[in-house]
Amino acid sequence: MTDSRFDVLGIGNAIFDILGHVHEETLTAHNLAKGSMRLVTAEEALAVDALLTDAVRISGGSAGNTVAGVASLGGRAAFFGKVAPDAYGEAYRHDMHRIGIDFSTAPLTEGPPTATSVILVTPDGERTMNTFLGASQLLKVSDIDVDIVDASAITFLEGYLFDPDEAKSAFRAAAERANAVGRIAALTLSDAFCIERHRADFRQWMESGQIGLVFANIAEMHALFETDDLDAAGRALAERVPTVVITMGAQGARVITNGEAVDVPAQPTKVVDLTGAGDLFAGGFMMGHARGLPPAECARLGAIAAAEVISHFGARPQADLADLAKAAGISFA
Amino acid sequence: MTDSRFDVLGIGNAIFDILGHVHEETLTAHNLAKGSMRLVTAEEALAVDALLTDAVRISGGSAGNTVAGVASLGGRAAFFGKVAPDAYGEAYRHDMHRIGIDFSTAPLTEGPPTATSVILVTPDGERTMNTFLGASQLLKVSDIDVDIVDASAITFLEGYLFDPDEAKSAFRAAAERANAVGRIAALTLSDAFCIERHRADFRQWMESGQIGLVFANIAEMHALFETDDLDAAGRALAERVPTVVITMGAQGARVITNGEAVDVPAQPTKVVDLTGAGDLFAGGFMMGHARGLPPAECARLGAIAAAEVISHFGARPQADLADLAKAAGISFA
Repeated sequence: MTDSRFDVLGIGNAIFDILGHVHEETLTAHNLAKGSMRLVTAEEALAVDALLTDAVRISGGSAGNTVAGVASLGGRAAFFGKVAPDAYGEAYRHDMHRIGIDFSTAPLTEGPPTATSVILVTPDGERTMNTFLGASQLLKVSDIDVDIVDASAITFLEGYLFDPDEAKSAFRAAAERANAVGRIAALTLSDAFCIERHRADFRQWMESGQIGLVFANIAEMHALFETDDLDAAGRALAERVPTVVITMGAQGARVITNGEAVDVPAQPTKVVDLTGAGDLFAGGFMMGHARGLPPAECARLGAIAAAEVISHFGARPQADLADLAKAAGISFA
Repeated sequence: MTDSRFDVLGIGNAIFDILGHVHEETLTAHNLAKGSMRLVTAEEALAVDALLTDAVRISGGSAGNTVAGVASLGGRAAFFGKVAPDAYGEAYRHDMHRIGIDFSTAPLTEGPPTATSVILVTPDGERTMNTFLGASQLLKVSDIDVDIVDASAITFLEGYLFDPDEAKSAFRAAAERANAVGRIAALTLSDAFCIERHRADFRQWMESGQIGLVFANIAEMHALFETDDLDAAGRALAERVPTVVITMGAQGARVITNGEAVDVPAQPTKVVDLTGAGDLFAGGFMMGHARGLPPAECARLGAIAAAEVISHFGARPQADLADLAKAAGISFA
């Protein structure tokens, strides 16, 4: 395989986040499942927005956050995602370009507005997401620029892409292409409820041999395998997928490669907002993976990136992650 | 005077903030005066926006931030300011309404977009603002709802209103009305460069006897009086203005009332972003003033509100300031 022009290509729902605080009781009163992502209509989004006691607006989207992490670590990253030609869509594009991410998916010319997610942050830092998919669900197979897939060491797909039908086809096309040219297709399971909605599809992908790297947290492993024996589930998954990364929040992460498991602790930090923790862990891990670091070093990079993003509001890094990696003694060519 | 329906009415430029980090060298390379506010065109705003390494979008505007502080302390607040009927304008209105602020100034029907300020935050937490006034400069005398002025214990005006000609007339009308009905007109000097642009006007207002409460920091006092003898300048100002509040950053604040000066220390905190420090100090102070607390208690409330807002990104409070005031043992009826 020739050298790659991009370390990571992220493909995902291009979403603008509206984040704010709520009291614990607000979640209970409105029957919202803490820590999850639910899909809402534009009207429902407005109603949930009114529950926030403050509001900060920041570019988001799982894969978008992940490639922002790769860029902040000094990596070369690209992104495919669909926005509308409105203020949020323009801001999303600006935010990708300012950090040097190649993002040239054509915006919609007509149709729904740019996707937004109203994110309720409780005092414990946990986030509960209410996503209006808008324009993001109209990502098409024709939006998959194969030249960029070919030029990317890792093509990273978010499980949330299984929600929009149109985007699911784009997802398949991208993963097949990455495999066809000898690149790695990586997948994050995204959310336990998302897996419940699409369990058969997720299972089929795991078995297909097309996924070279998978990220899952404990709730997602439960949802995917419908078992409490996570050790057995992890081993079973690792038979099909060369690199399995199981994230366990404050308990750190486990990486299973070629039947060998390595545990890496989380990096201690004061939690302000957990939004983006998994996304940034994946970004750090893949940056190391693309540059040939051993699994434990990849996971350390993931832990550094995740710790930065949960120490402030919003899912995009505010500090220079390359500086933090350097300070931790991690270097990559 | 009858009881007031509002503790504080804020009148100011309705501005959406686009905040992010820059390296120190970026300010030098682009000849930007650290800590100041400069007015820019839409094109200049875009060019400065591209210098940010990350971007967070939050409702801002000096007087808007101040009344958000009053609301977070449990006070009743109102706001006059001009937005356009676009995404930022709608978000600005939502953000005021979600925290219970009475904000019903009619938006523009046509004309420039909602005002934005691109705020460059350096590693020391200092902010440098680049403001495109847009719709905000079209606040008119007819936008001054006298019923709300009459119903407000304090009508608070930001010095930045001297920049747009149209808004300056609205400013005068509001201050005159507040005085005519026996209410307090309060003024913040806003920025040293703003004072240099409008020194004669500011001086005339100070001498007019119409200002009952003024907020100034040290740089603004220097700019207004063109002297290094701040003690003398403070005493001279206090002869014309019943309550003078001089903020001194980490050195705390001095309140001069009836010839008596009281110094109150700043509340120690880790500085993340100084945006809104002065605005929130004014909000806390005026909440206490409207409820009849002594000057030192008012300044303590100001210090609590300022400390919260500089501990995170953005100029709007994220914590419940009423809880923080209660924890500090400050209560008001």
